[in-house]
Amino acid sequence: MSNPISVEVINFGDELLVGIRENSHLKYLGERLSHFGVSITRSRVILDEPGEIKRAFAEAWAHADLVITTGGLGPTADDLTRETIAQALGLELVFDAAIEATIQDRFSVLGRTMGPHQLKQCYRFEAGEALHNERGTAPGLMYKNAGKTLIMLPGPPHELQPMFENQVLARLQADGILAEEEVYVLVRCCGAGESSVEQMMQPLIEKCPSLTVAYCVHFSMVDVRLSCRDGSLSQEQLDSIGHEARQLLGDDFVCFGHSSLAAVVCREVLALDRKLAVAESCSGGALGTALTDVPGASQVFVGGVISYTDDVKISMLGVPESLIEQHGAVSPECAVAMATGAAEQLSADYGLSVTGYAGPGGGDADNPVGTMHIGYHSPVGVWSKTVRYTGDRVDVKARVVQAALDMMRRKLRKYKMEEFLSGGSHD
Amino acid sequence: MSNPISVEVINFGDELLVGIRENSHLKYLGERLSHFGVSITRSRVILDEPGEIKRAFAEAWAHADLVITTGGLGPTADDLTRETIAQALGLELVFDAAIEATIQDRFSVLGRTMGPHQLKQCYRFEAGEALHNERGTAPGLMYKNAGKTLIMLPGPPHELQPMFENQVLARLQADGILAEEEVYVLVRCCGAGESSVEQMMQPLIEKCPSLTVAYCVHFSMVDVRLSCRDGSLSQEQLDSIGHEARQLLGDDFVCFGHSSLAAVVCREVLALDRKLAVAESCSGGALGTALTDVPGASQVFVGGVISYTDDVKISMLGVPESLIEQHGAVSPECAVAMATGAAEQLSADYGLSVTGYAGPGGGDADNPVGTMHIGYHSPVGVWSKTVRYTGDRVDVKARVVQAALDMMRRKLRKYKMEEFLSGGSHD
Repeated sequence: MSNPISVEVINFGDELLVGIRENSHLKYLGERLSHFGVSITRSRVILDEPGEIKRAFAEAWAHADLVITTGGLGPTADDLTRETIAQALGLELVFDAAIEATIQDRFSVLGRTMGPHQLKQCYRFEAGEALHNERGTAPGLMYKNAGKTLIMLPGPPHELQPMFENQVLARLQADGILAEEEVYVLVRCCGAGESSVEQMMQPLIEKCPSLTVAYCVHFSMVDVRLSCRDGSLSQEQLDSIGHEARQLLGDDFVCFGHSSLAAVVCREVLALDRKLAVAESCSGGALGTALTDVPGASQVFVGGVISYTDDVKISMLGVPESLIEQHGAVSPECAVAMATGAAEQLSADYGLSVTGYAGPGGGDADNPVGTMHIGYHSPVGVWSKTVRYTGDRVDVKARVVQAALDMMRRKLRKYKMEEFLSGGSHD
Repeated sequence: MSNPISVEVINFGDELLVGIRENSHLKYLGERLSHFGVSITRSRVILDEPGEIKRAFAEAWAHADLVITTGGLGPTADDLTRETIAQALGLELVFDAAIEATIQDRFSVLGRTMGPHQLKQCYRFEAGEALHNERGTAPGLMYKNAGKTLIMLPGPPHELQPMFENQVLARLQADGILAEEEVYVLVRCCGAGESSVEQMMQPLIEKCPSLTVAYCVHFSMVDVRLSCRDGSLSQEQLDSIGHEARQLLGDDFVCFGHSSLAAVVCREVLALDRKLAVAESCSGGALGTALTDVPGASQVFVGGVISYTDDVKISMLGVPESLIEQHGAVSPECAVAMATGAAEQLSADYGLSVTGYAGPGGGDADNPVGTMHIGYHSPVGVWSKTVRYTGDRVDVKARVVQAALDMMRRKLRKYKMEEFLSGGSHD
């Protein structure tokens, strides 16, 4: 299916322009809309100032069929968006007693009284609709005219998202703007760079000229998004192209869709009915965090030790003091001992560990800053792998977590049969 | 200082519009530019398609003094940005042998040979300059004409950021576009909502009509950014207004600037020359991650235990089995026992713990999904605090980490004198 309409997202808010936070709305809206066959055509972030709002809104309204705005609906004095857009559309704002009643209700549940500045939030466009806010006071606003639709959503993500899911999606589907189904296949891979992946996909592109292939690199992963803008490929055809892509990618193939490496590892360990523990030095808990971000992780993940000092590696993980003296705490040997220690101390079948220098301090001639060793203990053997990354420590931590999970994923697949036959501690 | 110029950022790339990733460039560029007295006036994200590129670029070039683009400079077939913008500017692209030599060098160091598709990256605008890429092949491009400046940067953050720091900043300062100094004060607070903070700031706004106050809410924190667009307040005056804001905020004041709660806690513990350990159930390592994101954390943080199961709480943290039987693992009592266990087992002075149901599974009548207990052990006492959050587990984990760190921050300040006199295990 081709994109039926042109969509523009306008984010209001100084904080997005001065670097205080990332634009999570754009990611969220883009991801959700693409599930319903629509992609955002363009997006802009502008200052919450009447002149800027008016110009950007006029440009967007002239060129797009659907305009979605975020932010600027709050009760604070700098939220002028509602008023300015009404002016730009030549509409009146009307006081809506139903909105006031809803806000009153919300405040009385919270044991607070509604202040006069909240009254600003009780206005909607004369010919428009207010969208209920389950999680805050500011309602959203919707307005339709001459085949165009405007949707204004509040800024806080925990207010915007339920409103979009529960109020907006159904309305846009009813208007025929959103489709019912997903019309793309996402193939996630890890271990090859963007150019290599592009080369691996070449046979597919030659075979299907109507295929649109987009690449997105994040850390060690490359997402290949297979879609068809002219509508000539069905979902079944896209699925089958996705399976061909999987074959072409070989061991670098991670999964279809957006599953994290942690989720893929949890699935594999769950399928074996085994348990996993971690031992983390420089990653500081980031590996455990990645694993416990996966819903249902508790079926697989028992916990771990963050061993930021040598003492903790020795006392909590049973790493021999002599091993640290001989090889150092940043060594493949220590990584393996930590992985085995985690599995043994926490009664798990698998242990995954990281030790290294995340920077900015630390490092020596053998192991400069950014050098990290991954240790892996499984019922069929122990392995280590050394990686080196540049960047700040937050980046380096995120990368080594991906590398550790990818190493475990590959070993689990490579030794699938041996793992299955090995009999873990839970058999 | 008032914003001397109008700045527009254009991000090219389908992946930013279909929700695959967040626009980290905008946050980075916004943050860096604001340190030099310039804020981004507007920003847009558009598809990598010639029609879209041409229209967006023309609009931006007409209205802005400085246009910064990101992405679209790579060697893949969908990177058409360079060509399209040259057309829009009416400029020729010229082959630059110096760029080719640089790319050749880079490839030979990596032991690879340069492919023909890399040649695309050797072109620059006829009247423009190429910006060296320390970390990748695609050079950036710079073009100046009639008082306007165009800067084109590569998409990968680890290429863009060093280029911006080492190539772009000095050039923009030399052209008088960026100032030398920071011209705002950021006051970070935690514990009060945006409306309350706005009310607390009211006396300042009444006193200084030329003060611009912007608020940004993220999780439990509210950032108050104090600046002055008309240039009538000096840095000293802004600093002194910042100190007044601190008084008005009382215990909710966290710090000046962008320090995380974890960094503030690390600073306080370091000032006392003590050590900190954590015990994490539902937060799964996120508390350790937040602490180890702080450069120099190893001076303070010794590590922790991720105790995702009851067994691990008992065996690794010494939580009495009978306590779990009587009160449950999700209880204030267990949280305190975990905090004390972490401090004792890891030989630290302070223990900070989290236990609860992050969802989507788990929960009971007393402790519905989203209920979490924080435990805190210090040389002067133990405390617990119960919080409840809604949202997905990633959100809930991030929030409870903030709550735990904020609790510890408040206790450390409240008992500052007692802590100082108490004598930790390291005295």
